[in-house]
Amino acid sequence: MAEKTWVRMVTAQTPTNIAVIKYWGKRDETLILPVNDSISVTLDPAHLCTITTVAVSPSFDQDRMWLNGKEISLSGGRYQNCLREIRARACEVEDKEKGIKIAKNDWEKLHVRVASYNNFPTAAGLASSAAGFACLVFALAKLMKAKEDNSELSAIARQGSGSACRSLFGGFVKWIMGKAEDGSDSLAVQLVDEKHWDELVIIIAVVSSRQKETSSTTGMRDSVETSLLLQHRAKEVVPKRIKQMEEAIKNRDFGSFAQLTCADSNQFHAVCLDTCPPIFYMNDTSHRQVKIISCVEKWNCSEGTPQVAYTFDAGPNAVLIAHNRKAATQLIQKLLFCFPPSSDADLNCYVIGDKSILKDAGIEDIKDVEALPPPPEIKDAQRSKGDVSYFICTKPGRGPDLLSDESLALLHPETGLPK
Amino acid sequence: MAEKTWVRMVTAQTPTNIAVIKYWGKRDETLILPVNDSISVTLDPAHLCTITTVAVSPSFDQDRMWLNGKEISLSGGRYQNCLREIRARACEVEDKEKGIKIAKNDWEKLHVRVASYNNFPTAAGLASSAAGFACLVFALAKLMKAKEDNSELSAIARQGSGSACRSLFGGFVKWIMGKAEDGSDSLAVQLVDEKHWDELVIIIAVVSSRQKETSSTTGMRDSVETSLLLQHRAKEVVPKRIKQMEEAIKNRDFGSFAQLTCADSNQFHAVCLDTCPPIFYMNDTSHRQVKIISCVEKWNCSEGTPQVAYTFDAGPNAVLIAHNRKAATQLIQKLLFCFPPSSDADLNCYVIGDKSILKDAGIEDIKDVEALPPPPEIKDAQRSKGDVSYFICTKPGRGPDLLSDESLALLHPETGLPK
Repeated sequence: MAEKTWVRMVTAQTPTNIAVIKYWGKRDETLILPVNDSISVTLDPAHLCTITTVAVSPSFDQDRMWLNGKEISLSGGRYQNCLREIRARACEVEDKEKGIKIAKNDWEKLHVRVASYNNFPTAAGLASSAAGFACLVFALAKLMKAKEDNSELSAIARQGSGSACRSLFGGFVKWIMGKAEDGSDSLAVQLVDEKHWDELVIIIAVVSSRQKETSSTTGMRDSVETSLLLQHRAKEVVPKRIKQMEEAIKNRDFGSFAQLTCADSNQFHAVCLDTCPPIFYMNDTSHRQVKIISCVEKWNCSEGTPQVAYTFDAGPNAVLIAHNRKAATQLIQKLLFCFPPSSDADLNCYVIGDKSILKDAGIEDIKDVEALPPPPEIKDAQRSKGDVSYFICTKPGRGPDLLSDESLALLHPETGLPK
Repeated sequence: MAEKTWVRMVTAQTPTNIAVIKYWGKRDETLILPVNDSISVTLDPAHLCTITTVAVSPSFDQDRMWLNGKEISLSGGRYQNCLREIRARACEVEDKEKGIKIAKNDWEKLHVRVASYNNFPTAAGLASSAAGFACLVFALAKLMKAKEDNSELSAIARQGSGSACRSLFGGFVKWIMGKAEDGSDSLAVQLVDEKHWDELVIIIAVVSSRQKETSSTTGMRDSVETSLLLQHRAKEVVPKRIKQMEEAIKNRDFGSFAQLTCADSNQFHAVCLDTCPPIFYMNDTSHRQVKIISCVEKWNCSEGTPQVAYTFDAGPNAVLIAHNRKAATQLIQKLLFCFPPSSDADLNCYVIGDKSILKDAGIEDIKDVEALPPPPEIKDAQRSKGDVSYFICTKPGRGPDLLSDESLALLHPETGLPK
């Protein structure tokens, strides 16, 4: 029995990502195969990431998982697909020091434990399932010494959550829709790494949604079945945009990048509205999205050349990508003018992430926010206190990492239970 | 000089209309030629119409016009186009009793006066320009004894305001986009008259807009120039829908009619959202449109077959078309539950038009409104007092009419000035 007491553990960190050419619509619901390619930017894991510890031990009698400290079921099809695909690629593992020896075909009988947590509020609706499935697959692959590269792993993560495949890389990432019926060629590739275009600054306006939104799975299905514009978008519009976006990213052409990003976000929401019954992700009760879009459009127009791009996913948060630090500094001033914190809020909790942007903007406390001038390009600019929960300042970031520091593990090294 | 003192006058009434297959986008801005056919239902002029008096006299030294009692300039291109086209078709007029004799080529030298008013609030954004230009052209044609039929006149009214061409007929009307470069074949035809499908009931929720909207001329131009979905809609989607809508109207197939009407309204707003910068007509701050759409969709879904269709133009008003009186009675109950009048409102001014619908619904005063049960198909139905300005109950109506009763004329029969 003594040799059966070992626990082998791996801890990994995976970023979240935001699409700049959107994924909306599956051609295969089980394999999660999309109707078009998509492109995303990976967000800095220092500010937004999932950390996952996976463990295996002959003493575990079933697969178990804890998400943000709470046990959840692994019986869902999406988890089962990921577990099955990774187990099929597991290899022999030997660690003489710890007395571990797992033969390739032992993996079918061994059970795993998974503990995962997000370093950002899950309720924020910031693609936590993308980072989560990417991290699960990446960590399990390392645990089981699978030889597949990150692109091959992305095709497995895709079966957990479509956009998860794009979280296997840093920088800018393309999810190639693929052609194969089994989905084997529907995977992510890195376009450029996070150093290629490192002057970009990303500011996320996190807002709490007061209304129940259509889940993206249901929404996509309805759009595929009823929108007469979706197929045109997928077949005619997106292929051209993907090429233009790849060029814009390669050449760090912010004007084209911003134009394509905004247009594609709007078109995704147009397809949602063309769905029967219509889906309104861009229609929050406080009108924040329209205010933000209007603010950005007016500013870009007044400057003659885009300073900022906006993009909105299937929820109310706004993701704003500023051309550079100077544009980001002006952007945070405009945003804080239009969306000041509630009177009792702590500025330190209202703008999180890379706070150096705030410092560059000369904002140290609430008084500085109150003293901000209205953006000159907006007539009768209104201040809407409390409409935004908080802002996250971040930038393009790197892909998955193994965390070798055992103190960061989420499972106890001996019991295999959450710490 | 004595023979110069006559004034010849004609007064006409023209209905407004609401498109069920939308017109959005011009292929020629000056001639106002659309990128697709459209279909509308004419609204009962008893509740929504324009009345216009036109007059000619050798004593008039310039063309003048009064709209709702206020003098406006006729120098705009759209007025000038209509006046020129009608003058070119003017014929000889003789009225021995009044001593009037106008030769065909006298019309070039004679000046006209126009007085026009809407029997509904102009600020309501209920296609007053459609009824207005249709009435102007129709009345001038009668004044000048032009021999053109209403379809031919519609091609002139179209040059005042595109959708005006559809107000030259009652019932259901198709605006054929045409092919000719000079626009001569871009005109309206009647599909069926107002008696063909007379069980339909139309309820309009009039809401005051708190935000400035994009004018439809500017919006259409931006959409044509920037939306990648508009051309697909115009070329691929609308031609099929026009055929299906014509069939549905011919067969009084309310299920198909409602499905097509709602889908086309949503697609029009989708194209607006796909425009750069995006146009948000469906995004009013009080969320009324989404509430109304959601209410209708849930009800139709719970009944298994559509009871009501919704359609929204380039403004915040909702136009609801109920299958029959029974559906309309239930609809007004649901609408009054969700959008009750302000506490101090007079129900008599809150539901106008055909008040017999209210009576059928058993609603006589505010207390009856307060006692309405929540619609069972809507979970946690909320009441939003004051979000709707008022409701108009109406039905499909007839086309333009000459008003022979001289007491209805808006100009003084001797001075030719507004009464």
